[in-house]
Amino acid sequence: MIMSAYFDYLSGSPLDPRVLEAMMPFLKGVYGNSLSSHALGREAAKALKVSREKVAAFIGASPDEIIFTSGEVESNNLAVKGLLMVHENGQLLASAVEPLSILRPVEALEKWGFSASLIPVDANGQVRLSALEKLINRYTKLASVSWVVAETGIVQPIEAIADLVKESTSVPLHCDASLAARLFPVNVRDLNVDALTISSEILGGPSSVGALYLRDGLRIQPLLEGSPQEMGRRSGRENLAGIVGFAHSTELTISERQSRFNKLKQLDGYLKARLKEIPDLIINADLPSRTPGILSCRIEGLESEALLTHFDQAGIYASSGSPCASMIGKPSHVLKAMGFADQQASSSLNFSLSWETKISEIDEMIDTLSQSVIQLKTMTF
Amino acid sequence: MIMSAYFDYLSGSPLDPRVLEAMMPFLKGVYGNSLSSHALGREAAKALKVSREKVAAFIGASPDEIIFTSGEVESNNLAVKGLLMVHENGQLLASAVEPLSILRPVEALEKWGFSASLIPVDANGQVRLSALEKLINRYTKLASVSWVVAETGIVQPIEAIADLVKESTSVPLHCDASLAARLFPVNVRDLNVDALTISSEILGGPSSVGALYLRDGLRIQPLLEGSPQEMGRRSGRENLAGIVGFAHSTELTISERQSRFNKLKQLDGYLKARLKEIPDLIINADLPSRTPGILSCRIEGLESEALLTHFDQAGIYASSGSPCASMIGKPSHVLKAMGFADQQASSSLNFSLSWETKISEIDEMIDTLSQSVIQLKTMTF
Repeated sequence: MIMSAYFDYLSGSPLDPRVLEAMMPFLKGVYGNSLSSHALGREAAKALKVSREKVAAFIGASPDEIIFTSGEVESNNLAVKGLLMVHENGQLLASAVEPLSILRPVEALEKWGFSASLIPVDANGQVRLSALEKLINRYTKLASVSWVVAETGIVQPIEAIADLVKESTSVPLHCDASLAARLFPVNVRDLNVDALTISSEILGGPSSVGALYLRDGLRIQPLLEGSPQEMGRRSGRENLAGIVGFAHSTELTISERQSRFNKLKQLDGYLKARLKEIPDLIINADLPSRTPGILSCRIEGLESEALLTHFDQAGIYASSGSPCASMIGKPSHVLKAMGFADQQASSSLNFSLSWETKISEIDEMIDTLSQSVIQLKTMTF
Repeated sequence: MIMSAYFDYLSGSPLDPRVLEAMMPFLKGVYGNSLSSHALGREAAKALKVSREKVAAFIGASPDEIIFTSGEVESNNLAVKGLLMVHENGQLLASAVEPLSILRPVEALEKWGFSASLIPVDANGQVRLSALEKLINRYTKLASVSWVVAETGIVQPIEAIADLVKESTSVPLHCDASLAARLFPVNVRDLNVDALTISSEILGGPSSVGALYLRDGLRIQPLLEGSPQEMGRRSGRENLAGIVGFAHSTELTISERQSRFNKLKQLDGYLKARLKEIPDLIINADLPSRTPGILSCRIEGLESEALLTHFDQAGIYASSGSPCASMIGKPSHVLKAMGFADQQASSSLNFSLSWETKISEIDEMIDTLSQSVIQLKTMTF
């Protein structure tokens, strides 16, 4: 496998070697069960407690408000199903650009009396506050808005959304802050959210580990039931090595977030400038509020899949949207919600960077992109 | 921490160093997303495919019938909730000695029209076939019986149960074979089960990884929804390193199961003989069908928690039942279902062995046990 340039960090990110080092004692030695009362169990329970404190501190929560999960998708499913199913019936109000792990779970609950109402977004993917205000009603049992839209990097006005929801209702607000947390300090009290998803991999931690913050006192119906782990809110043997790694990645993020952000801003500026050299290339939703390091663009008339094939041959890895969207073979629901025509959506390419991305990777990608565009346009026209 | 002897393998088992070695490339290098279409994604997808084939071969299933999960508790919850919730309402028929991850999920579904009926067991914890036959009715939508009872090691007559369920009904049968699979060859076709849980840690694989076998064609409502992993039956980024480790542990189990079984049988025989030296000690459910390496016993009149405190001080780790039961502080529902009085249940101790347990560990434990019994009896009487 040749790998020259990787621009698919939102789909998969490497484990920080320092995090792996922190995990090793739990892969090699400590195997006690945190529920066991003997010393080996207490050792596991202590590592779990310390990790919980670190993850709580990362988002300004109390340790008891942290539920460890198997990642973003489980946290989102737990938030949606768990917070709806404590009611007899009701409605989820979700932004039209939420990830599928927010939108899909409600579909399954339709026959039990639950439904979803989508908050429309503007052409840049930002939630229309006036629409949100009109949509909230007495059937609304949960609102959910992700802080950063995965495909376009657009930042939602989450504080204004929280103010609006909290001002007039007692509806709990969930926020998927997985992507936001790698770039911005997250504080659940300042944000005034009731539930919040964070995830390990994007922070340089192991994959398949995450957490749901749940405000103290908020009732939730667990997804996984049985043994009393996570104060009965998520049963099952904890992924202790993974949780320890996740916690370490949050500590590293706190100390390095500003420098990572600066690095990403610089790389993003360079990427954007170089992309503008490509004739007819349009950057999707290019607002000042776009997160550095997540960039969606399109060259109208060119299918992104054709470009990705050229890229792949040259060892350049990007994506045509969320991995899910490309797998399903449907145009991205995010771009559609922003008013894109099918053809515009299917000509869209996604670049996601890491603070470790190199300028030379961007240059290499731009070279391949320029050549591919010329070749493909010759074939098309 | 002094550790002299460990008898709590059902609560926590060490990761086989050979398994960790197989996992390392996926902790250090490969971080692609199996849904991504580029080479790094394909590398992940290939490792996932190979792992799926290994796990399928381990239980005689087709690869498409394997759903990877975060472990036994998720597999059991998925089986129960997922197979019930494709119906409008209905009843789960579960043995009274099922793990809590089978019994609890139904409670949450009560307000949606679902319920559980418990199949009574005899004094040894074995399902009463005649009772099962009477309990199945047109409301039954799922039956679930674990092959080996975690607390007592008693093996259920799973073939006879499957015959009985399959003979007269089309009710799907789920079997938690997590413990069975470390000792017996498991073949889902021969067993004639529709769903089956297996788990990695007890095989020497990483914790928090497992699978649910789901017979081809059987509909299930996923617990985790969103992206299309696991053919849409379990969304979320796969724990690739964990899955690779799990698959490797199944291969090692196939080649070493017979020798491990022989070792466990020998250790179990020695443990049992030495336990019999302790005055008034009774082995719970000591049938020929008890699995070697799982042993529950009691000394009536002595609280097991008091004994465990003595053990802990001497660096000897055992448990008073399932970790869950001891955490909740209630007598084990398994022993209660077998007709134990509260006091008998709370005087019960559990020993679970590994093929790596040493004779010297057993000797050390017996020494401590003898002394503790004398001390505690002096205090009690």
